[in-house]
Amino acid sequence: MGEKNYIGRIVAIARTHKDEIITGYRVSSRSFANRKIVRNGDVCSVMPVNPEEYRDNPYVSYNCLRHNNNVLIISNGSHTDPIIEKISLGYPVRDAIASSLLTLDYEKDKYCTPRIVSAVDYKNNSMFLAIIKPDKLEVRGIALNKGEACLIATYELTDPWKFDTKAGSVNEFAAEILSLEFTHPVCSLGAKLSEGKLDVGMRNL
Amino acid sequence: MGEKNYIGRIVAIARTHKDEIITGYRVSSRSFANRKIVRNGDVCSVMPVNPEEYRDNPYVSYNCLRHNNNVLIISNGSHTDPIIEKISLGYPVRDAIASSLLTLDYEKDKYCTPRIVSAVDYKNNSMFLAIIKPDKLEVRGIALNKGEACLIATYELTDPWKFDTKAGSVNEFAAEILSLEFTHPVCSLGAKLSEGKLDVGMRNL
Amino acid sequence: MGEKNYIGRIVAIARTHKDEIITGYRVSSRSFANRKIVRNGDVCSVMPVNPEEYRDNPYVSYNCLRHNNNVLIISNGSHTDPIIEKISLGYPVRDAIASSLLTLDYEKDKYCTPRIVSAVDYKNNSMFLAIIKPDKLEVRGIALNKGEACLIATYELTDPWKFDTKAGSVNEFAAEILSLEFTHPVCSLGAKLSEGKLDVGMRNL
Amino acid sequence: MGEKNYIGRIVAIARTHKDEIITGYRVSSRSFANRKIVRNGDVCSVMPVNPEEYRDNPYVSYNCLRHNNNVLIISNGSHTDPIIEKISLGYPVRDAIASSLLTLDYEKDKYCTPRIVSAVDYKNNSMFLAIIKPDKLEVRGIALNKGEACLIATYELTDPWKFDTKAGSVNEFAAEILSLEFTHPVCSLGAKLSEGKLDVGMRNL
Repeated sequence: MGEKNYIGRIVAIARTHKDEIITGYRVSSRSFANRKIVRNGDVCSVMPVNPEEYRDNPYVSYNCLRHNNNVLIISNGSHTDPIIEKISLGYPVRDAIASSLLTLDYEKDKYCTPRIVSAVDYKNNSMFLAIIKPDKLEVRGIALNKGEACLIATYELTDPWKFDTKAGSVNEFAAEILSLEFTHPVCSLGAKLSEGKLDVGMRNL
Repeated sequence: MGEKNYIGRIVAIARTHKDEIITGYRVSSRSFANRKIVRNGDVCSVMPVNPEEYRDNPYVSYNCLRHNNNVLIISNGSHTDPIIEKISLGYPVRDAIASSLLTLDYEKDKYCTPRIVSAVDYKNNSMFLAIIKPDKLEVRGIALNKGEACLIATYELTDPWKFDTKAGSVNEFAAEILSLEFTHPVCSLGAKLSEGKLDVGMRNL
Repeated sequence: MGEKNYIGRIVAIARTHKDEIITGYRVSSRSFANRKIVRNGDVCSVMPVNPEEYRDNPYVSYNCLRHNNNVLIISNGSHTDPIIEKISLGYPVRDAIASSLLTLDYEKDKYCTPRIVSAVDYKNNSMFLAIIKPDKLEVRGIALNKGEACLIATYELTDPWKFDTKAGSVNEFAAEILSLEFTHPVCSLGAKLSEGKLDVGMRNL
Repeated sequence: MGEKNYIGRIVAIARTHKDEIITGYRVSSRSFANRKIVRNGDVCSVMPVNPEEYRDNPYVSYNCLRHNNNVLIISNGSHTDPIIEKISLGYPVRDAIASSLLTLDYEKDKYCTPRIVSAVDYKNNSMFLAIIKPDKLEVRGIALNKGEACLIATYELTDPWKFDTKAGSVNEFAAEILSLEFTHPVCSLGAKLSEGKLDVGMRNL
């Protein structure tokens, strides 16, 4: 994998050198670059910088981060909502992700854009990366050593792909994934739960 | 059932005296009355009359009608999309509705508003009404005599409820369901497929 | 509904005059009458009286009752197992039933025999009756007054159907549903959880 | 991966040097070695050599192969049935596999044995390998060159694993996968559809 490719949206999870789990999201976009991530309490959303833009496209604005004090979900679309809601109703993380991805499926745009997810269960100490595309559904528990991170992207890197991380905070992880040498970066966030509270760092280019 | 109650959104199906199947949708709303239905080709959507209004609420704007030339789906929320998409991928109508309702579940607002659906399969000559609420999931095939219609609503009439219809066209059915004596009517549509083509009539108060 | 009809298998739930919740199962069968219910610890199973009989038919032998100390499931087929297993993994009762019925669907025999379920959640004080058949999926929370029972059957009474009960124990409820005037009775059970422990009474004709 | 390991049941797909697609199944077992595969028309089943054995274990006897003239399914358990039934009702192969695996889940034995699947869609020219285990659900379309095969197993090789094949017939593929140097082989089959007709070769040690 040459790292100068366009791989679209990225969800990622890192285990820091201090053994903290941080998760992150990066918007990369050829078609809708004029977007930002905003935090509103316990939710982070991707939206147009100018609210008049991209209005007819349901795939442009969505909640990209939600949590329920135990589990932190990051995704590239409207599936963030049913996933965290089903987890809060008692579903195992694996099942909430799988059923939501299977139902909502890949995006019905001209790229058949996959839906991707990262999930960190801080209570049960487990982590998942997931994707649905026309020929694959995968929800996979992952394991990380200190200093190791793993991502899944909408294009090219559609299997879990490990990389080294030096990040020690949510801000540093946001910066790190925004600077990964894949093309068309737009904005990013890093996030974790600390005793059930959400800690977020954001980078908007 | 006194007919002066507030029963919220309504999906309905009628068999006319001329043996045509027409389906309909009515928006009734206490909280977000300033809305309209607009048609954009093969899709009808509910949206605010003033685009600045209700912007933070994902349950306010949605596609309420889509079809794939064989099957016509009407619903009160974002589940219209995965339902018609799964049907187009080959799912039986019953399964597409059930899996989408089960995943997206009732709306997580203060009313736990149910999701409701009407489906007419013009190719296989079948009809379904469906609902999900906290204590029920129901996807039910229905049968209608000429001059008979059946609805399901988000509140009170959450089981299929039959009524007489005199409507002979999509416009007349749109008018008829808007004038049903339940409170807080906002707007409505009637629709059918004729040789795979969408025919819609709309009423905005 | 004349009560001399053949309605096949029956799942039922009763609220006794002493306000206890008892659930029951009755095997009625035209084709495979030589069957019995046996208890093996926390599981009850339907099986042939002669193990050599009916061997090629997967719909003849199955676990008809399982529980996890909080929730008691009764069903007419192999769906008992995934339902109780998903509940034990955290699924809400409604969702475990709906997803299992939707996946396993009606039986692919010459009658398209529906799958039916009763569920009592003794911890959350809720009750469900459910069915899947070719044109319907229904999972419905029910409410019962003292002295009232409700059943759902594989044929004819495929919507919840209330009846009066005088039963005060699991044995009495087993006897009561076996004596309901529907044809071809074979065997029955009544069951409840008392402080998480299973109490079962059985009747084999 | 040392090839002397025990990897349990194996599903596999091969593209022969003559560009035919053949799929296969191998039973390897530490606990229930006295089993055989039998063909009964369009279905193949795993069962005990002595019908009195293993009678209490629902995971021992099952249909391991079914087809609907277009799609050929092989699996290690009772999920064969709902998968082929949902495909026959119109589900895409990916969705039928994913929903059945998600509902039935890994086997609730002491090994948490995964459920595995191979699927060949001869009409649409696509192939899938799939698995569900406690920390993963994967349904993956695969591509094979001539002379290449790919398997997934219940233990160790729980990701798709490619190997070379010299097999040119269903009998040769059955023999080839039975002779793969993993421990505890019991029996195997190779199978394909030719103009919708099932062709099976079996090997029982």
